[in-house]
Amino acid sequence: MRLFFEPKTVAEFGASTNSFRPGNHLAKNLKGSFGDNFYPINPKESEILDLKCYPNLLEIPVPIDVAIIFIPAASVPEALEQCAKKGVKRVVIESAGFAEVGERGRELTRQCLEIAKKNGIRIWGPNCMGPINVTQSKMMSFMIPGTWEGRFTKGGVSMVVQSGMLSAGFLLHVLSRTPFGLSKICSVGNKMDVDEVDLLEYFIQDPDTEVISMYLESLPRGRRFCELAKSTRKPIVVLKSGRTEYGSKAASSHTASMAQDDRVLDAAFRQAGIIRAKGMHELLDVSRCLGVQRMKPVKKARIAVVTFSGGAGVVTADDIKDYGMELAKFSPETMKKIKTVFPEWMDPENPVDLYPAIEKLGPIPPVNTSLEAAMADPGVDAVYAHLFASVTNEHLFDLDFIGALIKKYNKPLVLWMLGDATVETRLTAELESKGIPTATEIAKGVRLLAALTMKR
Amino acid sequence: MRLFFEPKTVAEFGASTNSFRPGNHLAKNLKGSFGDNFYPINPKESEILDLKCYPNLLEIPVPIDVAIIFIPAASVPEALEQCAKKGVKRVVIESAGFAEVGERGRELTRQCLEIAKKNGIRIWGPNCMGPINVTQSKMMSFMIPGTWEGRFTKGGVSMVVQSGMLSAGFLLHVLSRTPFGLSKICSVGNKMDVDEVDLLEYFIQDPDTEVISMYLESLPRGRRFCELAKSTRKPIVVLKSGRTEYGSKAASSHTASMAQDDRVLDAAFRQAGIIRAKGMHELLDVSRCLGVQRMKPVKKARIAVVTFSGGAGVVTADDIKDYGMELAKFSPETMKKIKTVFPEWMDPENPVDLYPAIEKLGPIPPVNTSLEAAMADPGVDAVYAHLFASVTNEHLFDLDFIGALIKKYNKPLVLWMLGDATVETRLTAELESKGIPTATEIAKGVRLLAALTMKR
Repeated sequence: MRLFFEPKTVAEFGASTNSFRPGNHLAKNLKGSFGDNFYPINPKESEILDLKCYPNLLEIPVPIDVAIIFIPAASVPEALEQCAKKGVKRVVIESAGFAEVGERGRELTRQCLEIAKKNGIRIWGPNCMGPINVTQSKMMSFMIPGTWEGRFTKGGVSMVVQSGMLSAGFLLHVLSRTPFGLSKICSVGNKMDVDEVDLLEYFIQDPDTEVISMYLESLPRGRRFCELAKSTRKPIVVLKSGRTEYGSKAASSHTASMAQDDRVLDAAFRQAGIIRAKGMHELLDVSRCLGVQRMKPVKKARIAVVTFSGGAGVVTADDIKDYGMELAKFSPETMKKIKTVFPEWMDPENPVDLYPAIEKLGPIPPVNTSLEAAMADPGVDAVYAHLFASVTNEHLFDLDFIGALIKKYNKPLVLWMLGDATVETRLTAELESKGIPTATEIAKGVRLLAALTMKR
Repeated sequence: MRLFFEPKTVAEFGASTNSFRPGNHLAKNLKGSFGDNFYPINPKESEILDLKCYPNLLEIPVPIDVAIIFIPAASVPEALEQCAKKGVKRVVIESAGFAEVGERGRELTRQCLEIAKKNGIRIWGPNCMGPINVTQSKMMSFMIPGTWEGRFTKGGVSMVVQSGMLSAGFLLHVLSRTPFGLSKICSVGNKMDVDEVDLLEYFIQDPDTEVISMYLESLPRGRRFCELAKSTRKPIVVLKSGRTEYGSKAASSHTASMAQDDRVLDAAFRQAGIIRAKGMHELLDVSRCLGVQRMKPVKKARIAVVTFSGGAGVVTADDIKDYGMELAKFSPETMKKIKTVFPEWMDPENPVDLYPAIEKLGPIPPVNTSLEAAMADPGVDAVYAHLFASVTNEHLFDLDFIGALIKKYNKPLVLWMLGDATVETRLTAELESKGIPTATEIAKGVRLLAALTMKR
């Protein structure tokens, strides 16, 4: 697998000079990533992006580590034959029109696999956007350069997405919203050959990958996948769609995926310690959070909630129960510390409703005192902090103090913020950069806490 | 109830000259809403905001429709006695420190209720932010003026929220994000007297209210509430927290709410046609959506999905099944229309994966043709459209065309957008202003479709 992510030389079948064509975007990305070690192929052109353009693969004067094929499906077997002749061992097929479009496509698939098998070639795709190695700035996908350039944040999360446009859309979304530390991004499409099991195996030993995150429409080698998952302590988060009869029918049209008993899968995931996400946003939120915070796996997590709103505390308490966690019982010492910031008439409980304390002292002393008391309590496994993001009080939180608490007590802390959208967005970026995961909805933060404290 | 929302004269116990105090924010809001018909009360001041300040209620020379009490809890009964003497019949208590803080608070509650009962006074609160009449621009809450001024959009949704800060936080969030057409906003706190049943009764007959939206921590008069709900065709959306043992314990500390069997409530809601929300964001999203789109109640809704991404189609199909709806079966005529924009090798199905068509023709013709075909199909009850919000293609959608489709076919259409966050935010505002509800996550859009097509 490593060669797919770290090639020295790359060729593209289907490189285009037309800047509206995806074949041109791909060429631009490859030139940006590999410079002179990128070799465009197009029999109709002599030059592309100031690089010599080759009529076919065999004319290229150097060995090629990875060939990317982006031409109509019917011509792909011929390109693969060239790869076989030239001794190229890694091929990414980004073209669509294979098993997802019926008998003709299935016949093409059979031809490709036969060529690959005979010649020891591994095939990535087809019907995909290919691999992206963020750690080493190698972009082997046809995403439009202006949409991603200069926007990736390097980090520990490696993602596998079995859908081109969905992965592109979510990437754009992620890149434009908050810093998300990424290592590898893999759009695998129909998985004619390379699949999530190959990638999971690679990511488990890849030193740059700390969290493994996958969107899958099928998981045919489910048993092997779960065995591998059990063998590692790296967290694995999976969104498996095609759960229902509707979804699995749609998956079969989309990436030719086969149906599977979802309840069996669900139980196997639980046993293997795989975190199952319910939707794309949850997959991304949980993966990003695990990339910035240390996990604290416990049997049944005891959560402390410190909030500006009693109502938010009530909603949170329900959600904590739903996720099979507990509201922590504070020690007498913790109670005593928190009580110092409250008016005399109020005895705080967990969830700690800070409003009366904030009315008395302003936000900083109550928030800091309560959060530190909760983090210090040995009966608390993780802390959920709620902050109010008003246009008038955005400087009234001590974000550095909160960031330092996490390091000092080495315990998960998740933050939920509510208020003015502009302030929320700005503070979220600041918080995430300090390693404080921030949720946009109460239940989403509880979901993060559940992932951070999940027994493995 | 109407007098609470449409008073001519208003007095405030606890008006403050200190612009950092909530008693000052409230005074500013009342002066802005009622001008000279606002009468501040504070024995220590002679003037507040250029208005004469009265030492007590009885000195005020005119009749007062609504008195707002915002002084420490222990002094509230005395203020109520003044209301009784002056003949004020509507009182809003925004102070905290009542039944939510134990025996002393419960005793205060008893005293207040006794005075009210003896004198025919209706009490709103305590421990709340009071009523806001958006339709008539009457702000009777202590929200900081700078956070809300000029930001409300008038519309048909009336909200009840049993939590001050939560309602304030969500209001700020809503006001800063997308236009949300509101009529009345009611923070009711402990509900010593006026409760959700009184308000439901009022909103059912209020001509300005089209959608009723409530966050409740308790529902003691549940039977009457459900009876009223059955009597109206106005949609009612409720988030009831305190669902679990944790939540109901927290609710009891927060607003002195009593526990209730949640399964019984859930069944009663379903029978009464009440739409139950799972969280605050869902409550707001569904309410806003019902405020802009006509509902189409059917037994089992048949949904058409038109998407830029096959993967998104798969995830959507699963969610449609989860919400008890169906994927529509297109008529042969619809199939024929959609087929015109696709490459020859592809036979579109529902979900319609537009990607191959977009590659061939660009986004507008495939999106417009498929959406119109789906909207026109009598076998389709509602349509879910997915758009890709890239920085490079933001002008490549014909939003006016989509808005016109909804009017032409009088059928719900919900949109999900994915891509660059800035483009998403801008397009969402534009779409919502054209009456097209827009979801930020796939499942959230499906939830809106389920609400729009729910049998009543």
